[in-house]
Amino acid sequence: MSLKRRQLLLGSTLALGACSAADGDGARRFRWTMVTAWPAGFAGLGTAAQRLADRIGAASGGRLRVDVHGGGELVGPFDVFDAVSRGTAQMGHSAAHFWQAKSAAAPFFGTVPFGLNAQESAAWLEHGGLALWQELYARFDLVPFAVGNTGVQLAGWFNREILGVDDLRGLRMRIPGLGGDVLARLGATPVNVPGAGMYSALESGALDACEWMGPFNDLALGLFRVAKYCYYPGWQEPGSTIECLIHRPAWLALPADLRAIVEACCAAEQAQLLADYTARNATALRTLVEDHRVELRRLPDSVLQALRATTATVLDALVAHDPFARRVYDAQCAFRDAARAWHAVSEVPYYQASA
Amino acid sequence: MSLKRRQLLLGSTLALGACSAADGDGARRFRWTMVTAWPAGFAGLGTAAQRLADRIGAASGGRLRVDVHGGGELVGPFDVFDAVSRGTAQMGHSAAHFWQAKSAAAPFFGTVPFGLNAQESAAWLEHGGLALWQELYARFDLVPFAVGNTGVQLAGWFNREILGVDDLRGLRMRIPGLGGDVLARLGATPVNVPGAGMYSALESGALDACEWMGPFNDLALGLFRVAKYCYYPGWQEPGSTIECLIHRPAWLALPADLRAIVEACCAAEQAQLLADYTARNATALRTLVEDHRVELRRLPDSVLQALRATTATVLDALVAHDPFARRVYDAQCAFRDAARAWHAVSEVPYYQASA
Repeated sequence: MSLKRRQLLLGSTLALGACSAADGDGARRFRWTMVTAWPAGFAGLGTAAQRLADRIGAASGGRLRVDVHGGGELVGPFDVFDAVSRGTAQMGHSAAHFWQAKSAAAPFFGTVPFGLNAQESAAWLEHGGLALWQELYARFDLVPFAVGNTGVQLAGWFNREILGVDDLRGLRMRIPGLGGDVLARLGATPVNVPGAGMYSALESGALDACEWMGPFNDLALGLFRVAKYCYYPGWQEPGSTIECLIHRPAWLALPADLRAIVEACCAAEQAQLLADYTARNATALRTLVEDHRVELRRLPDSVLQALRATTATVLDALVAHDPFARRVYDAQCAFRDAARAWHAVSEVPYYQASA
Repeated sequence: MSLKRRQLLLGSTLALGACSAADGDGARRFRWTMVTAWPAGFAGLGTAAQRLADRIGAASGGRLRVDVHGGGELVGPFDVFDAVSRGTAQMGHSAAHFWQAKSAAAPFFGTVPFGLNAQESAAWLEHGGLALWQELYARFDLVPFAVGNTGVQLAGWFNREILGVDDLRGLRMRIPGLGGDVLARLGATPVNVPGAGMYSALESGALDACEWMGPFNDLALGLFRVAKYCYYPGWQEPGSTIECLIHRPAWLALPADLRAIVEACCAAEQAQLLADYTARNATALRTLVEDHRVELRRLPDSVLQALRATTATVLDALVAHDPFARRVYDAQCAFRDAARAWHAVSEVPYYQASA
């Protein structure tokens, strides 16, 4: 048992209490614990969690100190939601599509297959989505903030050529969540393998394919060494919103200026994380193609069409028995249609004209 | 002469001084003046300037108060740069492509024809661009921050059909800056008409065409009533970064926590402004098409190709005698090429697959 985990179990106030003490100048000081769904220092998401904590500390002049713990240190990566909901930690850094078991509506605030891209997600949250997210998470004593987006991912790394829908049949692929549900309906076998085990599972043939993040994080894992083809685009996770969770009583205990600081620092991450991923994915893609001669392949239209049609079935089934989830899904679809019509005369033709 | 302008000329410290007073609790308090390049309350950009000021006020618990003045109140819209450079105001809200006369490098930090879109601009600034921008503006005693992006604009409103490059010849169009330079080389006549005068100039036939912003701001001006065609995409301004300028001595006088607050609040605007424009442009486009039966037309490929080739000539000429501007242009091009290669396997095929 790690020292940190022992502190947790002993209920150490040093590590976990929302300490509040008056300083010499009379200002109340707070010390929060942040638990994250990523390993400590994980490039991209782990470093973003630390940057958020650092920013809050600097902007508050040390009045709100946030101690960051990687997934597995205090609580497991997939226990972040419960830990912050219960107040074991005051803050969490994770993604809403991990919490489908809590609510069928949750994935729509993270990412769903064929859902919103980064620009559309941020716009939807500002214009209707955040209010729905707050309504959902209030049930769990949580206040949610969006703290960035990882952009469109890759479809994944494959040792089987995908020429048509038939090639998905029997495919053993590491692909979690709703993307896995979609593939399963098309005859594939989603396999649950942690990130650290993907390399050897691909190498040994235990897996035929896997999806992880994008060029930046995938390059670091060396997946290109054990997979023949790299497929795009990432239909399964087209724009993952990263979330900052706050335990509601801890939030309400903050004075107004510290609440405004937390809100601004979370909002600051919105553009910065996407900027990081855009720049780093661009650099990593070049390395993959030029240095490692990775063969990039677009999924065939027939496959993308089948994935999209099946996604509609999966999402309809997901929200079928949950009126709130249905409302969220419908709101997101309506927004997507309007945003897509605008992007069809702005972003899309601009990419084409300047390619 | 307005009361505000008189205060300026009299050097009223109330309106303009970076007042600093110690409060009862010993914390120093600051009061700044922000001048903007937009009319007070101008939907989108003017409201964003006010939101930035409000956010800073709230996050600092009133220790840094920023009073916002619309363009023309204290100084003219195009005097913002000079006013903040001289310290007449501590803060400005504008766009770097307005300041081409100060430096040939400036437009690259705002927008240039066929340049970076919003996602690419934010990424470039985080990964190299901001350092160059800071280097340039330091010459003018200014500290720059990016505070949002308006996204790809429309190409404009036309009363002449554009079927080929020949149709640009003799076209009298309101299109400022480098976009106007490009059109002039193709035989058009860029005309300088302020925003408020565009409607009547189109109506009377004094103008054949004009470009303004995008559906949201253009709908408010009613341009669709006096123009036959709405062309896209906005090759001339594909992703305008909005800037917050700070007078360097005022910046250095702030304690570290207030500097961190200003930085976080500026960064918060980065995603929020784009989110606003994305959502509002989407809604306004629907109104234009469904309620006002606006005819949307894509510029023909031959025209876009000519505009792009001519843009390269114009930008090369712009930086030809300014080694720093050349360095900025080259850095931006290198980044664009890498980002475009990544977006060619992520954003672009995702838009196609989910259209």
